[in-house]
Amino acid sequence: MYESEVTRMEKLLELKEQILDLIKNKKNLDLENLFETIPTIDIAEALQDLDDVPYYLYIFRNVDSEYTASFFTELNVSTQQKIISSFSDKELIEVLENSFADDIVDSIKEMPANVATKILRNADPDLRKDINQLLNYKEGSAGSVMTTELIELKEDITVKDAIKYIRERGKNAETIYTIFVKDQTRTLVGTVDLDDLIFSNENEKLSDIMNKNFVVCHVHDDQEKIANDFKRYDLNAMAVLNKDDKLVGIITIDDVVDIIVEEATEDIERMNMVGQGHEPYLKTPIFKLVLRCAPWIVVLMILQVFSTMILSGFQNEIAKFAILSVFTPLIMDAGGNSGGQATTIIIRSLALQEFKKGDTKRVIFKEFLVSLIIGLFIATFAFLWLLFEMSVGIVDVPNHLITGVTTLGAKLLISLLVSITLLITIVVSRVLGATLPFLAKLFKRDPAVMCGPLITTLVDVISLLAYFVLWVYVFSPILGIA
Amino acid sequence: MYESEVTRMEKLLELKEQILDLIKNKKNLDLENLFETIPTIDIAEALQDLDDVPYYLYIFRNVDSEYTASFFTELNVSTQQKIISSFSDKELIEVLENSFADDIVDSIKEMPANVATKILRNADPDLRKDINQLLNYKEGSAGSVMTTELIELKEDITVKDAIKYIRERGKNAETIYTIFVKDQTRTLVGTVDLDDLIFSNENEKLSDIMNKNFVVCHVHDDQEKIANDFKRYDLNAMAVLNKDDKLVGIITIDDVVDIIVEEATEDIERMNMVGQGHEPYLKTPIFKLVLRCAPWIVVLMILQVFSTMILSGFQNEIAKFAILSVFTPLIMDAGGNSGGQATTIIIRSLALQEFKKGDTKRVIFKEFLVSLIIGLFIATFAFLWLLFEMSVGIVDVPNHLITGVTTLGAKLLISLLVSITLLITIVVSRVLGATLPFLAKLFKRDPAVMCGPLITTLVDVISLLAYFVLWVYVFSPILGIA
Repeated sequence: MYESEVTRMEKLLELKEQILDLIKNKKNLDLENLFETIPTIDIAEALQDLDDVPYYLYIFRNVDSEYTASFFTELNVSTQQKIISSFSDKELIEVLENSFADDIVDSIKEMPANVATKILRNADPDLRKDINQLLNYKEGSAGSVMTTELIELKEDITVKDAIKYIRERGKNAETIYTIFVKDQTRTLVGTVDLDDLIFSNENEKLSDIMNKNFVVCHVHDDQEKIANDFKRYDLNAMAVLNKDDKLVGIITIDDVVDIIVEEATEDIERMNMVGQGHEPYLKTPIFKLVLRCAPWIVVLMILQVFSTMILSGFQNEIAKFAILSVFTPLIMDAGGNSGGQATTIIIRSLALQEFKKGDTKRVIFKEFLVSLIIGLFIATFAFLWLLFEMSVGIVDVPNHLITGVTTLGAKLLISLLVSITLLITIVVSRVLGATLPFLAKLFKRDPAVMCGPLITTLVDVISLLAYFVLWVYVFSPILGIA
Repeated sequence: MYESEVTRMEKLLELKEQILDLIKNKKNLDLENLFETIPTIDIAEALQDLDDVPYYLYIFRNVDSEYTASFFTELNVSTQQKIISSFSDKELIEVLENSFADDIVDSIKEMPANVATKILRNADPDLRKDINQLLNYKEGSAGSVMTTELIELKEDITVKDAIKYIRERGKNAETIYTIFVKDQTRTLVGTVDLDDLIFSNENEKLSDIMNKNFVVCHVHDDQEKIANDFKRYDLNAMAVLNKDDKLVGIITIDDVVDIIVEEATEDIERMNMVGQGHEPYLKTPIFKLVLRCAPWIVVLMILQVFSTMILSGFQNEIAKFAILSVFTPLIMDAGGNSGGQATTIIIRSLALQEFKKGDTKRVIFKEFLVSLIIGLFIATFAFLWLLFEMSVGIVDVPNHLITGVTTLGAKLLISLLVSITLLITIVVSRVLGATLPFLAKLFKRDPAVMCGPLITTLVDVISLLAYFVLWVYVFSPILGIA
């Protein structure tokens, strides 16, 4: 049964001691019993990274392969590597026989060539063919996440024969919960869920009970699209077809759970300008963390050249009215954050496939209304808040800042200037923030990558321009300042 | 078979015309056939929000309830409401009988009281009890996402009897892929996967073949923790226990897929300062979009009071050396973005449960090293980049800005000042960015909510202070400026 996180960590330490003890005292029956009552992933986590390979070998030699194969799959790659190097060919063959091609491929990808070769040499020809095929698909494609062990039956066999076949041969399949049905030309024509088999009369044919409204994907389809389909259609397994529309593999729901989590990680990190390639933090090399972060900071600094130019151009005004520079960060931040909010909502909505074709205009118009209300609200708040800041002395306003205007007059004018600038900034940044993700999609770019830096850059430029242009060309002339 | 997204939208429009046509011409056989070959969610999407309720009623009266119940579940709540209001009691009962308690509860939550009452009045006593029970659990708890229709068998019955029971009674269960096994005291003692039943000898007892290493949760557990367990243990279904450790419901993998997507949405939006409550954009009321965004902008503006004070305090320096203000946004942005990157990586790692107890110190020390390397790199880059900007005239440097120093000397000094400030800012902001999520967890706050605004505020203050203090107390004195 499940324990809280902290307790689990302590339990895992205890478990490790307990297992090592059983091995030292050769209590094989207790060891077997332990594998029977504790999830193998917990055992694997407890025994991760032991220095003594013989402990592992003892387990593989004395515990039923029903448990050891999944135990092996759950170990990390460096531990797997050590074990494989010490395995006899016979032991390796036994583990391979009880593993799925996709799990083996995941391990092989990270192993040095000599260990990978040892695995391929010991895999039986069918498995070797599957492994080689899976290794060739592009990362993130359906082919790279599918497995080849599936149950495929002809449409004219009976429920009784299907169950008999599953009993005899199903143990090697990744799932028996979805069975794929083909016709005489080996074309996929339907799927049968195991529960349909259970509920059907045993003399019915598969063609009578199969679902004809099944959903498929192709080997080169993107995994994110596949995950969306699993969610949409509540699937347990999906057929993967090659370019000739022949069945070559399946993707199961447990793989999809991993895909969804992986895609969410990617989106979250990209939107906050972290480069791709999440690994557990403490296991990520320092060099890689630097590479995921530093380039974006450089890119943003270079993109900032435009706002730097604007600020530089207004140095004279700033020298005369330094108080203008006190409020630039406030304006730029409000713009950046507002644009970010709009982009975030739209990017997430796009990922969840909430929009139909032609919705773009409706979204932008709606966002215009939303931004206008938020802008008016924030402008009003800021007007009062700045007056307050200047009145209680949080911000110093030099006496008679502007000739011919009282100090109160100056405070009112500055608050008004900032507040109008905020209104413009928020409307522009939110509408841009809602538009850019659609543009990115139009140009087949990932909205999560493109939008953050672009929004920031554009909003900075627009808000600074609005601020200083309003000051120089509207407020100054009204006040009769040259 | 699956079509590309754009084509699907067009297909849905076609499908709508086709169905309305079939109904108008009373082609019931074709209509039934259509429900058989097309996923009901696609049909529901095609027929969402029709104004004519009779079309829906026609479908419910003429298509097999095997299809119409799931069709009903996939319609949006406002459409469901219209239909229920027009249903006879008999029709409503039929839909309820073929629906799962958790789906009904999801709809009831969003319906006006009179429609909800009509549903409860027509539900049979057992279903009504289940609905009322589910309605009482806190949003986001195991109880609120579980369903009560499960298969529970005694440990001493045989495989043969179990299969017989499932055939007869399994149709009402949410899943028959996991069967829950209880002992004489009605305590849950194991689970049996349907494939274990299929592969076992029919005279074996459930107690012989059941998994004893099953994972459970309690009604008040948080759904995020449950989703993590599903992923960790590759589960299809999980038992939910009440406080007396008795089985009261199950959560199935399709619910978990929804939970994972929902939690990712929440995290992504929170980290970008959007309040909770994601709904499809075009269906979210404008007022709600304003409420999800505007308050955060206000909060951030108020938190900015500290950096505003600092800038205000250095107005005299800015008036004398306006060029100082040209680079403040660059420094504040680099700090904000760096801190954001570190926070993002750590928050995501926390969500993926990558850390063990006691890892905090190791993380902060590692982050110190990472930030030092990034800081040195960015500082070097910025030094050269600023020199470049000032040399080619992107930034104007007034001749003899500082008395007694050549223009080149001034450029070198300013670049050096900004570059040292950046080093300090990046190290502080990244280390803070990595530390705050752990602090938030310690105080049982959601890291995604707390960290963004706090990081921004702290980093702004620290970077501005570093910048101006370095200028006033280090660079000015060296140059002999008062």
